[in-house]
Amino acid sequence: MTMNFSSIVPIANPELETRIRHRLDSLTKPRGSLGRLESLAVQLGLIQSTDMPAVSRKAMLIFCGDHGIVEESVSPYPAEVTGQMVSNFRAGGAAINVLCRHYSIEPVVVDMGVGAPTRNFAREPAMTRQQAVQAIEAGMSYSNVAYANVSNTNAADVFGAGEMGIGNSTSAAALLSAFSGIDPAETAGRGTGLDEAGVARKIEVIRRALALHKPDPGDPVAVLAAFGGFEIAAIAGLILGAAVRRRVVVLDGFISCSAALVAGALSPASLDYVIFSHCSAEKGHRRMLEFLGAKPLLNLDLCLGEGSGAAMGISLLEASVKLYREMATFESAAVSRDTGVPQDIS
Amino acid sequence: MTMNFSSIVPIANPELETRIRHRLDSLTKPRGSLGRLESLAVQLGLIQSTDMPAVSRKAMLIFCGDHGIVEESVSPYPAEVTGQMVSNFRAGGAAINVLCRHYSIEPVVVDMGVGAPTRNFAREPAMTRQQAVQAIEAGMSYSNVAYANVSNTNAADVFGAGEMGIGNSTSAAALLSAFSGIDPAETAGRGTGLDEAGVARKIEVIRRALALHKPDPGDPVAVLAAFGGFEIAAIAGLILGAAVRRRVVVLDGFISCSAALVAGALSPASLDYVIFSHCSAEKGHRRMLEFLGAKPLLNLDLCLGEGSGAAMGISLLEASVKLYREMATFESAAVSRDTGVPQDIS
Repeated sequence: MTMNFSSIVPIANPELETRIRHRLDSLTKPRGSLGRLESLAVQLGLIQSTDMPAVSRKAMLIFCGDHGIVEESVSPYPAEVTGQMVSNFRAGGAAINVLCRHYSIEPVVVDMGVGAPTRNFAREPAMTRQQAVQAIEAGMSYSNVAYANVSNTNAADVFGAGEMGIGNSTSAAALLSAFSGIDPAETAGRGTGLDEAGVARKIEVIRRALALHKPDPGDPVAVLAAFGGFEIAAIAGLILGAAVRRRVVVLDGFISCSAALVAGALSPASLDYVIFSHCSAEKGHRRMLEFLGAKPLLNLDLCLGEGSGAAMGISLLEASVKLYREMATFESAAVSRDTGVPQDIS
Repeated sequence: MTMNFSSIVPIANPELETRIRHRLDSLTKPRGSLGRLESLAVQLGLIQSTDMPAVSRKAMLIFCGDHGIVEESVSPYPAEVTGQMVSNFRAGGAAINVLCRHYSIEPVVVDMGVGAPTRNFAREPAMTRQQAVQAIEAGMSYSNVAYANVSNTNAADVFGAGEMGIGNSTSAAALLSAFSGIDPAETAGRGTGLDEAGVARKIEVIRRALALHKPDPGDPVAVLAAFGGFEIAAIAGLILGAAVRRRVVVLDGFISCSAALVAGALSPASLDYVIFSHCSAEKGHRRMLEFLGAKPLLNLDLCLGEGSGAAMGISLLEASVKLYREMATFESAAVSRDTGVPQDIS
C-alpha cells in the first residue's frame, strides 16, 4: 500500500493573487480594512484557481468512531455516548445540527467505526497499517460525492470537518506529541471535562504509549495507525482528497486539526487547502496550531468538536466571498478614492 | 436639559441566571463546551428577563455624519466620501449591505448630519450641549421604531450599531483620551489609512483640543459636545434607549465603541445591554475595550466600521440563542451524561 499525493500542489500563484488583490482594492472600503476576510477571499481564489471564487454547496462531514483507549479511563463519558450522539446527529438535536441549520450547511454523518472501536493504543497499535490507509481513502472519497440533500449531482465545494468519538482527544494529543516531540503534559487536556487526576492519568497513558510505539514522524501512516482513530484518519483523507480536487476544507478544533498533522506530513501542500476555524479551549490546541503554522479565525473558548467551530468558520468564508463578489467598486458607486495624502480643506 | 436614566437597571438576576445555566447544562454537550456562545445566551436571557431568550428582528443602524475636524487634515479621504457612502449604503453596494444580506439583518441608514458637519473641535466645541442631547435622543428613538422592511409593527429586538463619517476616528480617539486620560499617542491610529506623518498630526490635533476643552469625564454630555460627532451621540442614545427597553445592542469597532464611553458614563448599567463584537485593527481599540472592561468576540483585524463586525457578532448571538433553544437535552435524546468520574471499562 502506497499512496501518492504528487498531484497536490501548493496554491501559490503570484499573477492570480495580484488580480485578486487588485479587485479587493477596487471595492468601496479602505485598503485592507476587511482584514482576515480579505485573506480568506485570496486563499479561496488561489485554491479554486480563479479570480472569482465561489461558495455554492457547503457540507459538514461529521466522522464518528470509537476508541479502544477508553479502557484506560481517559474520558468522563461512557463509550456508548459516541453511538448515542450519532443518533442525536441523525435526529437533528445536536449543536452541529443547529449550527448547520443556522448557516445553511448540509450535515453528513459518517460512521467510521461506531461500536467497532480501534484497539487500545496503550497496549498495541490502534489499527493496522492497512486499516489506516483504508480509513484515509474513505475520507478522500468524501471530497467527491454528492450528498443526500444537495439538489444536484455535484459534490460540495466547501467542506467542514467535524468529528465525534469518546476518547479521541487522547488520540489527538498523542498524535501531536508524536509529530512535534512536545511532552504529553503540554498536549493532553481536559477533553470533555476530565478532572485533574484524570488529566494526569491521560498524560501517563500517552507517555507509555509513546514509549511503546516509538513513533517515527517520517512515517505518518504508521504514527496514525499507532494512535488512531478511524475518524481522524478520515479527516486526514478528506483534506488530501479536497486538495487533489482543489477544494477547501474548514477544520474544527483539537481533534479535527490533529488530522492536519497527518495530512501535512503526507503532503505539506495539502495544508494550503485548509482553513483553521478556531482555537479551542482544549489545552493542546494552541500548541498544535503553532506547530502547524496556522492562525485560527475565532477564539470563542469552544471545546465541543462535532464541527461546531468549523460551521462558524464556513460562515466567515462565505461572508468573505460574498463581500469580494458583491461589493460595489469605487468606480461603479462613484465614491472618491483615498487621495494618498490627508486632505487639507481649510 | 437633563436626561434621566434611572430606569436603566443592571441585568443581574441570580435566580434567572441559575435557571438559564441549568438548561445549558441539560443540553447534549459537555458542560461549558460552547464557551462564549453560552455566555451570550446567558446575557441575552438576563437582558430579555426570560429563560427562553429570542432573536426575532435584527436591525443594523448605520448612523452617518460629517465632521468639521477634517479641516485639520486628519483623514486621507475627502469629506464628501461620507455622503457618497450613504448613497452606496442606499444602493446596497457597501460591505455592510453584503453582510446584512448574508446574515438576514435589516440595514437602516440614519442621516445624523451628512453634509451638515459638526464644528472643528480643534477650534471650538464640535456641537452645543443642546445638539448633543438632541442627537442622543434621536439615537434613543431608534430603539423603538419599526423599520421599512420589517413586516410587522414591532421594533427590532436586536440592534447592531454601525457608523460612517469621514474624520470620526479622530473624535473617537479624543473621546477615549478624554474619558480615560490616556495620551492621544495611544488612542489615535491610522483610521482609514493615514501614513505616519498623518497619525502624528492627528495626535497633535487631539492634544491641542484636549488642552482647549479641558474635558471633565464627570460631565459626559459636555465631553461628547466637545469632540462630537452626531453619529457617535446617536449610538450612545441607541445604547441608552435599548437599555431602557431591555433590548441588546451589538457594537461594532472603534467609533461605535466610543459611544459606549458616553453611554457608560451617563448610565453604567446601560453597558450590561451591550455586546462588543470585535477588536479592530485600529490602534486605540484594544485600550478602549480594556477601559470599558469589555471582551470582544472576534479578532479579525477589521478596521472598516459601518457595522461590519457587529453583523458578524449578531450572527454569533443568533447562533447562541438557537443552540440554547433548539438543542436536544440529555434526557430527550437519551444520551448518557458525564459520570463525574472517568469511566473504567477495562
